[in-house]
Amino acid sequence: MERMSMAELTFTTAALIASTALQTARELGLKPMAAAVLDSAGHPLAVLRDEHASFLRPQIATGKARGCLGMGFGGRELARRAQAMPAFFDAINSLTGGEVIPVAGGVLIRSATGQVLGAIGLSGDTSDNDERCALEGIAAVGLQADCGDPQVA
Amino acid sequence: MERMSMAELTFTTAALIASTALQTARELGLKPMAAAVLDSAGHPLAVLRDEHASFLRPQIATGKARGCLGMGFGGRELARRAQAMPAFFDAINSLTGGEVIPVAGGVLIRSATGQVLGAIGLSGDTSDNDERCALEGIAAVGLQADCGDPQVA
Amino acid sequence: MERMSMAELTFTTAALIASTALQTARELGLKPMAAAVLDSAGHPLAVLRDEHASFLRPQIATGKARGCLGMGFGGRELARRAQAMPAFFDAINSLTGGEVIPVAGGVLIRSATGQVLGAIGLSGDTSDNDERCALEGIAAVGLQADCGDPQVA
Amino acid sequence: MERMSMAELTFTTAALIASTALQTARELGLKPMAAAVLDSAGHPLAVLRDEHASFLRPQIATGKARGCLGMGFGGRELARRAQAMPAFFDAINSLTGGEVIPVAGGVLIRSATGQVLGAIGLSGDTSDNDERCALEGIAAVGLQADCGDPQVA
Repeated sequence: MERMSMAELTFTTAALIASTALQTARELGLKPMAAAVLDSAGHPLAVLRDEHASFLRPQIATGKARGCLGMGFGGRELARRAQAMPAFFDAINSLTGGEVIPVAGGVLIRSATGQVLGAIGLSGDTSDNDERCALEGIAAVGLQADCGDPQVA
Repeated sequence: MERMSMAELTFTTAALIASTALQTARELGLKPMAAAVLDSAGHPLAVLRDEHASFLRPQIATGKARGCLGMGFGGRELARRAQAMPAFFDAINSLTGGEVIPVAGGVLIRSATGQVLGAIGLSGDTSDNDERCALEGIAAVGLQADCGDPQVA
Repeated sequence: MERMSMAELTFTTAALIASTALQTARELGLKPMAAAVLDSAGHPLAVLRDEHASFLRPQIATGKARGCLGMGFGGRELARRAQAMPAFFDAINSLTGGEVIPVAGGVLIRSATGQVLGAIGLSGDTSDNDERCALEGIAAVGLQADCGDPQVA
Repeated sequence: MERMSMAELTFTTAALIASTALQTARELGLKPMAAAVLDSAGHPLAVLRDEHASFLRPQIATGKARGCLGMGFGGRELARRAQAMPAFFDAINSLTGGEVIPVAGGVLIRSATGQVLGAIGLSGDTSDNDERCALEGIAAVGLQADCGDPQVA
């Protein structure tokens, strides 16, 4: 009747992941960013916006993370699927009010054993640079990142 | 960094809760109903509609359950608060697109130790009768119901 | 003035179709899925989500089934039309808020005489695997599946 | 042509205000909360949700803060006006999609000279307790709180 669920992100861990990601962008001289860390069910734990980032960035960052969790893939796999199945992703887009943003910069956060604990989305610079900052944030707390690379997904 | 989460509803348990609730309505000669069982994050596990129930019932049942989980109270406590704070609930209503339906018939599902595992919403007959069927569904799988009664909430 | 409607899906039949589809996915080692069984008017009778499936799956499954009923074709015929007439499906998409998801995995449920009784949508694995589970669910209750194959549609 | 803006909240200050507020709730044994700190334009700098808080709390916290900034008053003044002018607030409610939540727990953040730098909203316990945690967060960074008390507003 019940199943064991071993681990869950706390808000302090989530805030540390998000702030590390934003500080990484600053240190690398990238454009100012927003970072959204969501729990495994897609609900926010920590959303931070660099005060110099433009104001849609938190929504975009949230959409990147939420899309990964809602579909079960990292952003790079979502991007490949959106390119292969445009009509499907057009429908998803309307169905969810744009909650699924299928580009790099959305990254699943996994435990050492591969369990999905949540996801992070970054937005502000290029998708590749967004993802780079996401990875630094996840590494800072010793968890595993799943970007949706072919060998992983 | 992580916290233990001990138990989770399966879809088979959820389907049994929902179908028991609908069968109870039939046995009691009540109006045909819909039942929605959601996990603790508000996502559906089992939504069933008696084929004789009117077609908005699944949405209403889902809103009753989702409101309980989103706010953290059983439906009777939500109903009391909506009466005491109408402007607050008007805003919640618009903010969530009507996802919070603050009436009896939404019931939190708790483990023996009080952990929230999910919620059920029923819709079709009076709120009191809806709740009665929800309680039968939860009892059938040996879990605890939290309707938002004053002594509980 | 009235017309006899000889057959109608009950919620218990719908729940059996949906749970068989989800169990099939488990037995075949496929990704966890959600299944939505709708009546011929497009209203839900049974929506089940495997507790391991990602949270957008019930909406996508519902969209696949609803598209079949709303347009009158199985998912494979919808997919062909979406490819041939992208502007038309863009408009349908906006018009319906993404309720029509034109891919395989949406299947009309027909009686032995060909009457449309409802539809099922599956989502979680590839479209082909989704459809395979849908067919198992329909077969388990002795009804006919219409996937939108050229010879059928 | 330009005006000096002497002070602005940074995301690190905003995150410190929000996390102090959530930690205060824990230390006082209150219900788990969400906190939203917005800049003076109403855009998020830091939104944190205690992992034990129910999932609508971030939206409600954001609505409390956004209402204060959008109307120019602390939450207590908004609550008085909502009670005195229900039809006006019904219209505001529909106009903004529920973004203005007129209750205590939304607090303007002012500089020493009274300039509005942003706002914080808290949600999770009673409105009075929500506000108490907001005040602790603002005090922790040496800024001024404006709750909308009569002598202030």
